[in-house]
Amino acid sequence: MRKFFKKIIKNSRSHEDGIFFDKITKILGFKPVTIRYYKKAFTHRSTNKLDETGNPFNYERLEFLGDAMLGSVIAAHLYNEVPTGDEGYLTKMRSKIVSREHLNELGRDFNLIQFVESKVNPQHFGENIHGNIFEAFIGAIYLDKGFNYCEKFIYDKVIEPYVDIPKLEGKVISYKSLVIEWCQKEKKHFAFEVFDDTGIEDQKYFGVKLTIDQKIIAKGRATSKKKAEEKASKRAYFALQEKIDKK
Amino acid sequence: MRKFFKKIIKNSRSHEDGIFFDKITKILGFKPVTIRYYKKAFTHRSTNKLDETGNPFNYERLEFLGDAMLGSVIAAHLYNEVPTGDEGYLTKMRSKIVSREHLNELGRDFNLIQFVESKVNPQHFGENIHGNIFEAFIGAIYLDKGFNYCEKFIYDKVIEPYVDIPKLEGKVISYKSLVIEWCQKEKKHFAFEVFDDTGIEDQKYFGVKLTIDQKIIAKGRATSKKKAEEKASKRAYFALQEKIDKK
Repeated sequence: MRKFFKKIIKNSRSHEDGIFFDKITKILGFKPVTIRYYKKAFTHRSTNKLDETGNPFNYERLEFLGDAMLGSVIAAHLYNEVPTGDEGYLTKMRSKIVSREHLNELGRDFNLIQFVESKVNPQHFGENIHGNIFEAFIGAIYLDKGFNYCEKFIYDKVIEPYVDIPKLEGKVISYKSLVIEWCQKEKKHFAFEVFDDTGIEDQKYFGVKLTIDQKIIAKGRATSKKKAEEKASKRAYFALQEKIDKK
Repeated sequence: MRKFFKKIIKNSRSHEDGIFFDKITKILGFKPVTIRYYKKAFTHRSTNKLDETGNPFNYERLEFLGDAMLGSVIAAHLYNEVPTGDEGYLTKMRSKIVSREHLNELGRDFNLIQFVESKVNPQHFGENIHGNIFEAFIGAIYLDKGFNYCEKFIYDKVIEPYVDIPKLEGKVISYKSLVIEWCQKEKKHFAFEVFDDTGIEDQKYFGVKLTIDQKIIAKGRATSKKKAEEKASKRAYFALQEKIDKK
């Protein structure tokens, strides 16, 4: 009987919760199970909320958890990706990837701040709120779906689009300029074209496609046109590299 | 055909490798798949070994990986175990658990040094070798079997027998003295008795049982009689606590 009521309560999601669920699902790429963890990841301490056992209900503890999960997933990625890097190199590269600056960028790009519940004006939060709630969000994924989902999310949404080892090593400054250089050398015609622009102010998102000799080579999506071009260029660079290697 | 030869090579384990396999299996609690990872975890840089691609074959990179895995598993454990602890508390407690001193103790208790391959006399290694190869060993488990096995190993072989939150908080100094105190107050007869002693010098292991009023309450196993008594006392303490709570 109790189970039955619980089920009803669970299913009778408010309209507001429904929107939250849909937005979170879109970011995650899968359906979350326990929405409460994600709610917690976006609840600021200024709300003074408590959970049913009287403990503070805010994102601060989740930050600790998310930071640890990010640390181990990035460690495993670097270990596999750079077999020549020694312990010192791996440690340094990981610090770069999980730097405050980088985490803030991630939080901003996912526009997580739209979900924050707070009694303080979000304008007073300062820059680090973006990185903090990003870490808490990772912690929530771990609690909700376990390590493997958490790892997959970090691979798909953080490592693939953001972690660029040659760039972090300072070897590559811009993939866009590398691609342009290559096109000019090979006498190929190239063009970057915006094919998608959400236009919504707080959720700006651009889709850019790169064509070389009228053929679409790669696409990129990001919160600015410049970033989207760079993403598309990075993908194109690795696609072209394979071609060159095959010769 | 190539697969067939690979299989033969894989199955024709030398006698020495067979002993290594058996000993590692005993420590792990499951059969390892790729022995090479564990070999690497115990290979000192002084051997100057290289792998097939020319990269150094020693445990240093695995230390980085194992440290990260330990960090995230311990973080998740603390998060769940101490819902009242804030971010600062969780960070501090984790540092205590993965302290150099504690990792050295773990490496020593598992007697991992017996496996080390080196050109330097192991007596010159210094104390930290124990913790370093313990971390590398955790890294090898992750590579061999993935996160879930790695997590299970850390829970069963590190957290359950070693991680004692009240003790780390400085609230409990010795479970043995708590149990003795309780017995004296309740006028119960108690006795610690060694029931198992391997006797082998480099793998000393003691089993101790604690009886209260002629009834076996708990057992403990460790590398010293004192540690085994403390383990048995800890288990007895939590068993008795439940009894007291039920009253």
